[in-house]
Amino acid sequence: MSLLVVGSVALDSVETPFGQVTDALGGSAVYFSVAASVLGPVQVVGVVGSDYPLDQLHKVGRGIDWSGLERAEGESFRWRGRYSFDLQSRDTLETRLGVFASFQPKLPPSAAEAEFLFLGNIDPDLQLKVLEQVRTPRLVACDTMNFWIGGKRAELLRLLSKVDVLMINDSEARELSGDWNIHRTGRWILGQGPGRVVIKQGEFGALLIERDRTFYVPAYPLEEVFDPTGAGDAFAGGFMGYLARTGDTSSNNLRRAMVYGATMGSFAVSAFGIRGFDEVTAADVERRVRGFRDLTHIELAEPIE
Amino acid sequence: MSLLVVGSVALDSVETPFGQVTDALGGSAVYFSVAASVLGPVQVVGVVGSDYPLDQLHKVGRGIDWSGLERAEGESFRWRGRYSFDLQSRDTLETRLGVFASFQPKLPPSAAEAEFLFLGNIDPDLQLKVLEQVRTPRLVACDTMNFWIGGKRAELLRLLSKVDVLMINDSEARELSGDWNIHRTGRWILGQGPGRVVIKQGEFGALLIERDRTFYVPAYPLEEVFDPTGAGDAFAGGFMGYLARTGDTSSNNLRRAMVYGATMGSFAVSAFGIRGFDEVTAADVERRVRGFRDLTHIELAEPIE
Repeated sequence: MSLLVVGSVALDSVETPFGQVTDALGGSAVYFSVAASVLGPVQVVGVVGSDYPLDQLHKVGRGIDWSGLERAEGESFRWRGRYSFDLQSRDTLETRLGVFASFQPKLPPSAAEAEFLFLGNIDPDLQLKVLEQVRTPRLVACDTMNFWIGGKRAELLRLLSKVDVLMINDSEARELSGDWNIHRTGRWILGQGPGRVVIKQGEFGALLIERDRTFYVPAYPLEEVFDPTGAGDAFAGGFMGYLARTGDTSSNNLRRAMVYGATMGSFAVSAFGIRGFDEVTAADVERRVRGFRDLTHIELAEPIE
Repeated sequence: MSLLVVGSVALDSVETPFGQVTDALGGSAVYFSVAASVLGPVQVVGVVGSDYPLDQLHKVGRGIDWSGLERAEGESFRWRGRYSFDLQSRDTLETRLGVFASFQPKLPPSAAEAEFLFLGNIDPDLQLKVLEQVRTPRLVACDTMNFWIGGKRAELLRLLSKVDVLMINDSEARELSGDWNIHRTGRWILGQGPGRVVIKQGEFGALLIERDRTFYVPAYPLEEVFDPTGAGDAFAGGFMGYLARTGDTSSNNLRRAMVYGATMGSFAVSAFGIRGFDEVTAADVERRVRGFRDLTHIELAEPIE
């Protein structure tokens, strides 16, 4: 089934305790599509400036359709950030919107027929504009961040009333609901429209909260983490890529999609930028997916009564 | 099988955003034994001052043997603390050791025959003194905290070389190893002697790290949390209580014990002090244990290869 993502296609400059990169390929749509492309085809809608290294971009992932990526005169979107010694927090040192500031998404005809749609973390007005152009999506998920929660709350709530899944960081989910309890927060978000909410908790994993059921996938146990940038978008790419591949939006299949998402997140953090995906094969993915199963698997014995 | 705990029997004064209590029954040995007693008999070694309300203490739990609890002239151990609005952090406002300062544990003959031993979070010298008096324990677990990691590191490391399981908070585990990565930290602790380490991560659950396997149990999804005090000790009580009940120290049974531990932790936080256990039945425990299974359960489908 067809999968479409709209989001940023950026140049990231990142410092971690282990090194730094300058103007590396990044942005939510790039991390998303590199991860999703391990599972099936994916089409990207976005914009880059005249300085973007498209030759490099066209080499990443497998089966990524970049025909919906507009090229505009001006500078590409740039993000610069620095992580703390333990990778638990990061400071944004600079954000330059460049051509993204005046981006007006126009979907090519093939993109308008997408069945699975991911609205990456961009201005809710743009997310709504993309959503309006997709004719009959089967499942729509979106991400957001504190910047929009504070600055475009009304538009964001309007978007939430139209999507099936919100995928969001836990601190941002709490900010959105105004409630520190993450399970009440999940319930509150369900009340805004989405039938499911995925709350990403970084090194602690992620929750899938549905109306009558909650699922928890931990983060993969990694003794080496190099760069957390893009882990959430890679998670979304694995999640949506698995749903589009299987065409099954049942609760049990969403749980599986969470595990594929967590698997892709674990590859993302294993190297700088998108390089964590360089050598990843389907067999690597399946090994890790089975590893997740063992990580939480219990065979219950006789009850104590 | 017989279960013995040594730890503090204290009077706690706690403030949370939801209220406060003064001089409530608390301490690691109390939380541990109230939780463990849901699963089977437990014996306590510790000390209280002449001001301790023993009549109240003797009413808590079921099948707790207090005959190893010494009563000394003086004031009981008291702790006073205050939680942040979101219960994520707490300040210790006052700690008064009282009779605990000069405590010299002497085990009654029945306690010296214990098969399962939990050394609650007290001075490592006292933990070692208790351990020396237990003749042939089948499994020994201990807890510790930052105070001893900083002040009695050599004694703590000596203790670690003699126990089977270390149960510890994640921030304290990181402090002990000097490494921020929790999985490398687990590996480091295994290198000190224990064959297993349980790392408690509060609202994010707990890890069981073994030499060749890692298990993760999330925290139970609770929309109402009132008082986190004692959750870690209740976890330990559920974990050790289940092991003592079943007499099985295999890896698969330790995983089950983790789920019983997490279940007891979830009851502990549901009310002030030990009152979360007031009405808990075996059927309640089993319902929640099954709930944990559903929380992480996945049926994997066809691999993607």
